[in-house]
Amino acid sequence: MKNVLLKIAYDGTNFSGWQKQPKTRTVQGELEEVLGKICNMKVELNGTGRTDAGVHAFGQMANFKGDFGIPVEKIPFVANRLLSKKMKVSDVRILEAKEVEEDFHARFDAKGKEYIYRITSSQMPDLFMRDRAYQIEEKLDLQKMKKAKDHIVGTYDFKCFQASGGEEKLSTVRTIYGIDILENKNVNSSDRFGFSGLNQNNCDVQDIIISVKGDGFLYNMVRIIAGTLVDVGRNKIDADSLKEIIESKDRKNAGHTAPPWGLYMAEVYFNDNFKQKI
Amino acid sequence: MKNVLLKIAYDGTNFSGWQKQPKTRTVQGELEEVLGKICNMKVELNGTGRTDAGVHAFGQMANFKGDFGIPVEKIPFVANRLLSKKMKVSDVRILEAKEVEEDFHARFDAKGKEYIYRITSSQMPDLFMRDRAYQIEEKLDLQKMKKAKDHIVGTYDFKCFQASGGEEKLSTVRTIYGIDILENKNVNSSDRFGFSGLNQNNCDVQDIIISVKGDGFLYNMVRIIAGTLVDVGRNKIDADSLKEIIESKDRKNAGHTAPPWGLYMAEVYFNDNFKQKI
Repeated sequence: MKNVLLKIAYDGTNFSGWQKQPKTRTVQGELEEVLGKICNMKVELNGTGRTDAGVHAFGQMANFKGDFGIPVEKIPFVANRLLSKKMKVSDVRILEAKEVEEDFHARFDAKGKEYIYRITSSQMPDLFMRDRAYQIEEKLDLQKMKKAKDHIVGTYDFKCFQASGGEEKLSTVRTIYGIDILENKNVNSSDRFGFSGLNQNNCDVQDIIISVKGDGFLYNMVRIIAGTLVDVGRNKIDADSLKEIIESKDRKNAGHTAPPWGLYMAEVYFNDNFKQKI
Repeated sequence: MKNVLLKIAYDGTNFSGWQKQPKTRTVQGELEEVLGKICNMKVELNGTGRTDAGVHAFGQMANFKGDFGIPVEKIPFVANRLLSKKMKVSDVRILEAKEVEEDFHARFDAKGKEYIYRITSSQMPDLFMRDRAYQIEEKLDLQKMKKAKDHIVGTYDFKCFQASGGEEKLSTVRTIYGIDILENKNVNSSDRFGFSGLNQNNCDVQDIIISVKGDGFLYNMVRIIAGTLVDVGRNKIDADSLKEIIESKDRKNAGHTAPPWGLYMAEVYFNDNFKQKI
């Protein structure tokens, strides 16, 4: 038996999330079926993050144990052929596969993760982006958002950013190592396909990427941080009040929960080096 | 009663095409329902092109007659509010509305149209593009494709580019005013979000746009032209054989039919000026 670590990408739109559930399409369920065919046995995938319905990934990690008649590096090729429909790329793909030590576990051995939250702001939203970004019409004040995010970086009790569905008894202390707020400037180009063809009028578009790196995240934490930063950017929440919001440990004081379709699981860190990069 | 001309965009993925049909979701059906609410009467939309299931548009045109309590220019705003779901942009939107003369008809008065066909080529296809472009793995020879397309521009009997479902008795002579084959070079940038986040390995990606302008198109004509050009680009069809393929008037001699999800209805021309631009 080999222990294999996979890097996985998926478009979450048509999945009921990562975690296997009966009678509904999940990423874990779909992948276990295909890997089971390759191994000719029942396999169990341990994913690093159990993303919700509608949430995407281009850096989900998962390990499983199995025996194969093919080299481990060939697993992505074979699995992706099985997943793809005629002429069409499937909405889940294995990007990489490598053998890891017997006791390696993609969730328990993860030291940190990066999530990306994507927001677009335009008077004329691009419908081709509707499953890929949180689309709002108000222009956002990036300077205020950047000021606000500085209050979030650090080790705090982040109860204010936990959805009411979160497990109450566990610690809500987490470390956020860094938040970057980047603006993709390409979308304002006159190139008709720079932003999926719709911005022909060249109206003012903001395409904003929020990257959040931390040692772990509470339930809905990144979506609540994104929603709170949007509320700062549209002047509903004062940037410097983030300090008090965190201290209050009260979900009601934070901003709204941004929708799942703007969220991407971007990277998983299995050693502590990522902390130094930041 | 006013006669109103609309410019419409849609993502065709979840529609059974433009044309209204019972018990299935169509663009015409969805829009007639919303416009009916605004006019408080049954309306009938005349679309310029009856796009198939999965085909997109950012420049579909359609006219309808109705009475409104609001100025014509406000129709997009009101209709788009009715179409949008909570926080999410809908997959069909009205981009513009203007009043036109009483006897104007979006289909019969169209002098020409532009369709765009989008193809990506990469060893590592981007699943976030799977509904937006025809994704192939072979690198395409653009020079050969450009040579081949020159044989298609002009006035010919294009029976070879008509799907077998086309109406046999009608004339299959059409004029193609121009074909442009463009490569979007941005996608090879190291920007993680230049191409939806997946090309982190910076592998060789071609993002190719084929624009076809003509006075009218046979059934599946643009998709068969796109498939034939792909077959030229992958060296399955000789570029200079396009002349004989057209002369043969035989569908079997042309290339494969490219899938619907790469096709976009881009622009409709209501006067003959577009011929001079080319």
